Amino acid sequence: MDAKKALTETAGDMDKAADYLRETGVASVAKRAARDPSEGVVGVYRHSQAGRPVIGVLIGLASETDFVAKNEEFIEAANDIAMHAAASRPQWLSRDEVPEDALEKEKELIAAQARNEGKPDQIVEKIVDGRIGSFYKENVLLDQVFVRSDKFEGTVGDMVQQLAARMGENISISSMARVAVGEG
Amino acid sequence: MDAKKALTETAGDMDKAADYLRETGVASVAKRAARDPSEGVVGVYRHSQAGRPVIGVLIGLASETDFVAKNEEFIEAANDIAMHAAASRPQWLSRDEVPEDALEKEKELIAAQARNEGKPDQIVEKIVDGRIGSFYKENVLLDQVFVRSDKFEGTVGDMVQQLAARMGENISISSMARVAVGEG
Repeated sequence: MDAKKALTETAGDMDKAADYLRETGVASVAKRAARDPSEGVVGVYRHSQAGRPVIGVLIGLASETDFVAKNEEFIEAANDIAMHAAASRPQWLSRDEVPEDALEKEKELIAAQARNEGKPDQIVEKIVDGRIGSFYKENVLLDQVFVRSDKFEGTVGDMVQQLAARMGENISISSMARVAVGEG
Repeated sequence: MDAKKALTETAGDMDKAADYLRETGVASVAKRAARDPSEGVVGVYRHSQAGRPVIGVLIGLASETDFVAKNEEFIEAANDIAMHAAASRPQWLSRDEVPEDALEKEKELIAAQARNEGKPDQIVEKIVDGRIGSFYKENVLLDQVFVRSDKFEGTVGDMVQQLAARMGENISISSMARVAVGEG
């Protein structure tokens, strides 16, 4: 429905329609954010090695209505995100969850590296702000680039946001759990 | 192998054999505890409601060798424990994991109840020690009575210990994760 409207509004230009969808989608998702996403599904993925399951991931994907929760695309997305997390090993679900001390430690590390590279003090802070993005991209689920680029190109966060825009209600990853044996 | 030996040692008496197995099993498991259980499997269970998965549990069941890890009975046990945890909602894996403040709060509650019942101060402490067992049985996975009594009668901890004795190596639950949507 949203997609049709977007194509109408942009006179059939696919790229413009995608932008339109993103903008209006984001706007309407933000509007919906106040509502409580109390429905949803649990996505699961297990990775086997030599015939035995050695990594498992659970993803809680929350929606507002059970109408969306029982949608096949929605359930598939939950399983896809679980698969992604099994492969990409995010440490945290969102930036909010990164502990203050882990973040400070990383920032100090980047600053020290920048100084070692001979960067002047005035721009070290800017370098830190820039490079901390890589840290998030590596360790935070929502910032990671989705591994199945054949299915979706962008971050996991983008994927959830576009799903929300398409489904027409607030959708969020409510929890993530990863269990592995024989690692490290 | 252990079971055969137990039956031989106890002249075929099933009950005595079970006791023998438990005693010698426990002894040999304790001996093995120093070794590192670095192999294992991840058990999984998903519970669905109205056709959509709403609860998921992962259980890391660790063994010493991949010979045991690929044993069908071992993998089934991991899945069974995950199923148990989905139904019984343990908050912690072992007594060690119960936070000190949660334990203190529970003890104070029991003591207050005992005093309300008119119990003299001298025995309140004994009552606390006794009743704290119920708290563990309710909230700690290893202390919970396994839900599928048709498969095993006893606690999850007993189940793991007997599995270890039967498999002949150190086996332990290394991790547990539970994700649910739409609860509370």
